[in-house]
Amino acid sequence: MTSANTKVYLLDFGSMALDGHMIYWMHGPSGAIRFPVYGVLVDHKDGKFLFDTGFDKTFIDGLIPGNAIQADRQTVPGQLDLVGLRPQDITHVINSHYHVDHVGGNKHCMHATAICHKCELEAASNPQPFERRGYGDLSFAPQLQAGSDPTAYGDEIYTQKIETLTGDQEIAKGLFLFETPGHTPGHYSLMVELSGRRPMLFCGDACYTHRSLEENIISGAHVDVKQTFDSLEKLRGLAAKHDAELFYSHDAKAWQGWLPAPAYYA
Amino acid sequence: MTSANTKVYLLDFGSMALDGHMIYWMHGPSGAIRFPVYGVLVDHKDGKFLFDTGFDKTFIDGLIPGNAIQADRQTVPGQLDLVGLRPQDITHVINSHYHVDHVGGNKHCMHATAICHKCELEAASNPQPFERRGYGDLSFAPQLQAGSDPTAYGDEIYTQKIETLTGDQEIAKGLFLFETPGHTPGHYSLMVELSGRRPMLFCGDACYTHRSLEENIISGAHVDVKQTFDSLEKLRGLAAKHDAELFYSHDAKAWQGWLPAPAYYA
Repeated sequence: MTSANTKVYLLDFGSMALDGHMIYWMHGPSGAIRFPVYGVLVDHKDGKFLFDTGFDKTFIDGLIPGNAIQADRQTVPGQLDLVGLRPQDITHVINSHYHVDHVGGNKHCMHATAICHKCELEAASNPQPFERRGYGDLSFAPQLQAGSDPTAYGDEIYTQKIETLTGDQEIAKGLFLFETPGHTPGHYSLMVELSGRRPMLFCGDACYTHRSLEENIISGAHVDVKQTFDSLEKLRGLAAKHDAELFYSHDAKAWQGWLPAPAYYA
Repeated sequence: MTSANTKVYLLDFGSMALDGHMIYWMHGPSGAIRFPVYGVLVDHKDGKFLFDTGFDKTFIDGLIPGNAIQADRQTVPGQLDLVGLRPQDITHVINSHYHVDHVGGNKHCMHATAICHKCELEAASNPQPFERRGYGDLSFAPQLQAGSDPTAYGDEIYTQKIETLTGDQEIAKGLFLFETPGHTPGHYSLMVELSGRRPMLFCGDACYTHRSLEENIISGAHVDVKQTFDSLEKLRGLAAKHDAELFYSHDAKAWQGWLPAPAYYA
C-alpha cells in the first residue's frame, strides 16, 4: 500500500431538507429533516480527485424555494480555496450518482475528467418520469437535457470528458469504487486507503445515515428496492472486510463529529 | 355475458391514516392523510365472493394506537348484516394482497375458500424484513406466523382453504382477476362485469386514488418500483379496453361519491 501521501478533505457544501419519509423509507418521521451535503477531495499522487460536488443553490432555489442553505464559502470554488486550490486544479470528478445534490458543482471543474458508472450516465440521459426531478440539474452536461443521445457527442460534454466504468474498480492506488446500485441505477461508493488511519468508505446515498445502517432503512428515492437493500448489506460487508470507517452521505449528527476542510485525514 | 343477476356491494370497513409520502411515493404531502378502507361483496350465481376484508381494529390499535377508526357496523359481520348475510355465507374470500388493511376480516369467513395469488402467499409466509409490518396480521392463517412452510398444511389453514392462482384469470363468469404486482409480489385487481352498467374495476392498492392515476404516482410501500408503475399502466389499459370504471382502494373523495351497502350496483 503506497498511499503515504494521500490526503482526504471533507468539503462542506451546505445543507438541504427533505421529509423524513424520503430519507427513511417506510419509517419517517413525517416532516422536514435538514441534512448536510458534502464532497470529498482526495489529494493523491496521481491527481486531485473530487467525489461529489454538492448542489447549485440557484438551481435548488428554483426547484424548492427556501430549501437550500449554502454560504458563498460552501461551494466547490469556496471550499477548494480553503485548501489553496482552484476548480481547474481538479483532475477527476467522480460522482456517486447524478442527483441534483451531488452534481451541482461539477461545472466548475472545467479541466477534470468526470468518472461515473455507465448505468448512471444512461439513467441521467434518459430518465424515467419519476427520476426526472432527481436528475434535474444537468448543468454539467447540458446536451443531455434535450434527451439527446450522449454517444452522439463521443466522450465530450460541456466542460468535461466523461469516463464511464462498470464493476468494482481501483481507479488509482488505494482508491476504490464499489458498485452500490438501487438508489440510482449506477451508484458508486468510494473507499480511500490512507497510511495513517483506517480506510474511509464514503457511502454516497447508498447509506444516508447511521440510523439507515443500524435499522436497515433505505432511501425513500430508489429505482430498485432489492438492489438498494443489497447495497446497504454490501457496505456492511466492505466495512468489515477492510476495517473501513463508513461515512454516510447525509447524517447531520455524524457530520458534526468529522473534520471539515481545511483539516484533512491522512 | 350472463351476469344478469350479479350484484356488487361496497362494504365500509372504516378508515386509517398514513403519511402522505406513504400514499404518494416521492410526492407527499407530509403529514397524515386519512383514507377509507372497504371491501367488495359480489353476489354471483356461483357464490358470494368477498374481495378484501379490511382491518382488525384491535390489531391496528396495537400497531399504531389511535390510527384506526371503525364502528361496530364497519366490520365484516356488521357490513354483511346490512345485506342480510352472515360471514359463514361467504363462499370465497379473494384478497388483492395480504396487507393488514385488506385481510383483517378474513377470519370471520369460516366456510370460505380463500383465493390469492401464489406469489402473495409466498411473500406473506416468508416476508423480507421491510415487508413484515405490512404482513403483520396473519390471523387468517396463524400457522404462517411462525414462518412455517404453508405447504406442510396442504390446503388447510386456520379457517379457510387457500386456492392460489397465477396469471390473469376469470374465476367465475364475468369475474376477472388481473395481476397487478409491485405494491406486493402477488397483487390482484378485480373486474366485475354487470348487466346494467359498465364493468367495475377494483384496483386494490395498485392504485390508491384518482390522483395516483392522474399524476402517475405509486404507493410508498412497494417491492418493485418498475412493476408498480407497470401495473398502474396496466389498469389504465384495462379500463380503456373494457370501458371499465376504476375503483381506487383508498380515495376519500371518490368514496364519498360511491354507493355503500346496503345499496348495490348491478
